Amino acid sequence: EILQRIRDFFGATSALNKTESPGALQGKHVVITAGPTREAIDPVRYLSNYSSGKMGYALATAAQAAGARVTLISGPVQLSTPSGVQRIDVITADDMLKATQAVTDMDVFIGCAAVADFRPASMASQKMKKQHGEDSLQLSLVKNPDILAWVAKQSPKPFCVGFAAETQNLDHYAKDKMQRKNLDMIIANDVSNTNIGFNSDHNAVTVFWQNNKKHLEAQSKQSIATEVIGFIAQQTTSQPEEP
Amino acid sequence: EILQRIRDFFGATSALNKTESPGALQGKHVVITAGPTREAIDPVRYLSNYSSGKMGYALATAAQAAGARVTLISGPVQLSTPSGVQRIDVITADDMLKATQAVTDMDVFIGCAAVADFRPASMASQKMKKQHGEDSLQLSLVKNPDILAWVAKQSPKPFCVGFAAETQNLDHYAKDKMQRKNLDMIIANDVSNTNIGFNSDHNAVTVFWQNNKKHLEAQSKQSIATEVIGFIAQQTTSQPEEP
Repeated sequence: EILQRIRDFFGATSALNKTESPGALQGKHVVITAGPTREAIDPVRYLSNYSSGKMGYALATAAQAAGARVTLISGPVQLSTPSGVQRIDVITADDMLKATQAVTDMDVFIGCAAVADFRPASMASQKMKKQHGEDSLQLSLVKNPDILAWVAKQSPKPFCVGFAAETQNLDHYAKDKMQRKNLDMIIANDVSNTNIGFNSDHNAVTVFWQNNKKHLEAQSKQSIATEVIGFIAQQTTSQPEEP
Repeated sequence: EILQRIRDFFGATSALNKTESPGALQGKHVVITAGPTREAIDPVRYLSNYSSGKMGYALATAAQAAGARVTLISGPVQLSTPSGVQRIDVITADDMLKATQAVTDMDVFIGCAAVADFRPASMASQKMKKQHGEDSLQLSLVKNPDILAWVAKQSPKPFCVGFAAETQNLDHYAKDKMQRKNLDMIIANDVSNTNIGFNSDHNAVTVFWQNNKKHLEAQSKQSIATEVIGFIAQQTTSQPEEP
């Protein structure tokens, strides 16, 4: 009887999470990267980006609820895999690129991961020892591969969605990034507001596509995800709506 | 009735976790640092160390079970606070030092945190932008304060326990660190064995104090913690045992 109650509870929760247009992504394969990447400096130290992975996991949940087949390529996070979603775990940006390149039949790609732009030029195989009297250290970094740019260059090109985490000139940087990387949609969030974003369960974003701009006020990441998946479904399954 | 079963279950678990010498640290104040520290590079990037915090939290649980008053100064981890333990959350090494300096009446200090040795020389208040064509970056780092060394210089000096995570010449580095930092005990683990340590629930360590050396074979971190707390209790509450 307790098991039945648990089933009822999670059944009710799942129903709540359903997108408003169930089946809107039926037959589509949606690939989502989520979480941070970690770039090892040596066996004990690493470089990373703030990211709980919650936004990417919420998008995976929403895409699955909309009927899509979902592949979630995830950096190290403390989240459980959404039901019905195939999850591939990776650590570094290079691993994430390789996992992305191995995916076939991609209809939509959402680059939600906070990929480290740079990684240490070389990883020390042994722990670096502090030298006596050494008070500073220069760490040489090299650029990581740009996963989203790689996907956007493929032919046929999937519908490409990027994120822009900015602390200033949000609209300018977001639109510039969308054009420069040949994206179909970009989701911008102002990470200077520490009440929302990153580790929070809430977020407020502005979504840009073609000549459209839609601001989504502060709300749960799951609710934002459902809205965003709705926009993507509109753009990928029917004739474009009027601007 | 379900609540009673839950209570019974956790009651039984707590009993299992009890140290073999309950009350051995009665009246003592044990301060433990645990987890990693994070050093911000800019609002989206950071430098950190691999550490789940599990070993430090296991030590806090064992010390509390041995009757000590326990203060746990914790970097960002995904663990719940052991019952009866006072937890102080910090992010950076500087925060961890300040929290340590604010603690009074310390009898035992266990520096279990994986404190970042270095932090960025300056934190950029805005997100660093990639420059077109820029393929490398030099990150200037400066040394972080040494929390354990600060504690070991206090008078009266608490019983100071350090950790050494090494990938080579384990015994040599561990003993050298114990002498150089004026520690009373050091716990060395070989982090080159990736099956145990860091994020694992198991560990194998070698404990050094005075002229003693005791190897603890691979076992649960909670079991290692109980053994280590036992050694500390022996050294702090009674006349030293014969070597």
